[in-house]
Amino acid sequence: MSKSVTVIESVKLDDTNSALILLDQTALPNYKNFLHLTTVEEVWDAIYELKVRGAPAIGIAAAYGLYLGVKKIQTENMEEFKQAFIQTKEKLASSRPTAVNLFWALDRMHARFDKSKGETVEKVKELLREEADLIKKEDQEVCEAIGKHALSVLEPGWGLLTHCNAGTIATAKYGTALAPIYLGQEQDYNFKVFADETRPLLQGARLTAWELNEAGVDVTLICDNMASIVMKQEKIQAVLVGCDRVAKNGDAANKIGTSGVAILAKHYGIPFYVCAPMSTIDMNSETGDDIEIELRSQEEIKEKWYAEPMAPKEVKAYNPAFDVTDHSLITGIVTEKGIIYPSYEENLEKLFKD
Amino acid sequence: MSKSVTVIESVKLDDTNSALILLDQTALPNYKNFLHLTTVEEVWDAIYELKVRGAPAIGIAAAYGLYLGVKKIQTENMEEFKQAFIQTKEKLASSRPTAVNLFWALDRMHARFDKSKGETVEKVKELLREEADLIKKEDQEVCEAIGKHALSVLEPGWGLLTHCNAGTIATAKYGTALAPIYLGQEQDYNFKVFADETRPLLQGARLTAWELNEAGVDVTLICDNMASIVMKQEKIQAVLVGCDRVAKNGDAANKIGTSGVAILAKHYGIPFYVCAPMSTIDMNSETGDDIEIELRSQEEIKEKWYAEPMAPKEVKAYNPAFDVTDHSLITGIVTEKGIIYPSYEENLEKLFKD
Repeated sequence: MSKSVTVIESVKLDDTNSALILLDQTALPNYKNFLHLTTVEEVWDAIYELKVRGAPAIGIAAAYGLYLGVKKIQTENMEEFKQAFIQTKEKLASSRPTAVNLFWALDRMHARFDKSKGETVEKVKELLREEADLIKKEDQEVCEAIGKHALSVLEPGWGLLTHCNAGTIATAKYGTALAPIYLGQEQDYNFKVFADETRPLLQGARLTAWELNEAGVDVTLICDNMASIVMKQEKIQAVLVGCDRVAKNGDAANKIGTSGVAILAKHYGIPFYVCAPMSTIDMNSETGDDIEIELRSQEEIKEKWYAEPMAPKEVKAYNPAFDVTDHSLITGIVTEKGIIYPSYEENLEKLFKD
Repeated sequence: MSKSVTVIESVKLDDTNSALILLDQTALPNYKNFLHLTTVEEVWDAIYELKVRGAPAIGIAAAYGLYLGVKKIQTENMEEFKQAFIQTKEKLASSRPTAVNLFWALDRMHARFDKSKGETVEKVKELLREEADLIKKEDQEVCEAIGKHALSVLEPGWGLLTHCNAGTIATAKYGTALAPIYLGQEQDYNFKVFADETRPLLQGARLTAWELNEAGVDVTLICDNMASIVMKQEKIQAVLVGCDRVAKNGDAANKIGTSGVAILAKHYGIPFYVCAPMSTIDMNSETGDDIEIELRSQEEIKEKWYAEPMAPKEVKAYNPAFDVTDHSLITGIVTEKGIIYPSYEENLEKLFKD
């Protein structure tokens, strides 16, 4: 029934609990390098240099980094140990100041420390490792639940389109938008996946195509502007994307280009699903208009990756990192608690009350 | 009223009628090299190596190449001269066997030769130059007429989106979709132009952004997947694209991604104009389904331009060069005879009857 599929785990503790094994995402797709990190400095570096990306994966890496850092502290004195813990935490927090999940994970480690009053230093170290393991385990469970719910609305043999990378390497395991694809792969669904390359950072080409191919999934890379033709040719039966933030009314912010794919899907009558852990649903944002769009450097469009610049120096480039998909374009929002359908205003509110 | 704007001419004969001055498009946007070609071999090379691209520009280059080739033939014997003419024509025809306009231009030169019975060799050489000049002049007139008609539906200060390159460097002068932008520039329309970079060959970045910038037009480069957000932000008041072939019902084949832009424009209520010389309207194609879509190499998506490959070797890439925009998405088809509005079936037929 279920076949063995190797789904990459990009962040894990080694068997002796003394090294963080981390997939270097900056080396993809040309090199599959797993780094063995044993010091806080090394973990700090890996986060700073974007060797680990994806909110959950960064959080997990930071939690393990904090554990590995304090594990080496040779003291029985709890006060001294705590001080070292806080220093290590602050050091790691400085690695990527805009990554919300980084702080969330480090704060969770801190809370666990605070709850361990009366324990020995040795025991606290063990509890911190347990907490990091738990952060990872919970994320994997969320991903699996999203995958299961999404899979329930997909049929074997379908063509699926995805944008950017909401995959296993961005999370503990399975990813969000890619989770149903991996679960389907384990059950011989034979999906035909089309990955938008996702300019300008090419996460679809470098990461999504790479990780799906590693798991033996049938994946075809297209340029972003080819989504329309593959939909018209009836190669696509559903679209699955991840998301950064969902507003109260169901508007969803995700990687630039997502809203365009949603409009095309609506035009061609193809269901469009946003895979969103509950943690990304922000009931304090009324609509997508409340979500600020990050503008990134022009160089990413005009020069990055290339052997030489692809546009004249004097030409401006506009480089928004995200866009907002209007809730009216979204067939369903897939959370770990199930799929939410319109009216989102109503049903998201219910979700949080349950 | 009208200000001086330098619109690049990419193909022209020099003042002494002894060299073809050709902008090397393969060197753009980093080098603005005008080649001085004096032999058939050099012109053949330039066409073969895609230094000149765009159907009209190729035709003009070939016509001048043919003239320059036979100009040097030292004979008074018409039979000998004609044989050399045919050899030169056949040589140039082999430079790019898929370029319909290449054959069209060479055949026109041949027809002019045939009409010059009784003339001296010297006179025939002159007539051939005149014919090449005429091919160029007529193309420029078509472009200017398209530009004028398109400009009549645009307003000063508008934001305009274009895809790929239907610009001056692809034609005698002005281009098709870019013609109203240049004419508007001469009349201080202050358009804000957004150029889709147009993956995978990046004609929007390398060519459109370059040539508009050369003429002092306010141009902003975006990735193809950013068309949705700039439309949503009300930065775009009209879309202008070129086209390769229009079917009898108004379906239009153009560079890959055009159909997606048209769907977005319809969604946001933005007019979408296809600029199409009469020569591209094919009344023998009933609908867009009759237009075959060229598939190009996977390497263009995965490797071209990059310092190293951006996707794993084993991953497939699907690379259609064109797509068909359904006539229902097109606000108007701008020809040199005026703008055609729906129903296209009816009004295109009328156009050819007039």
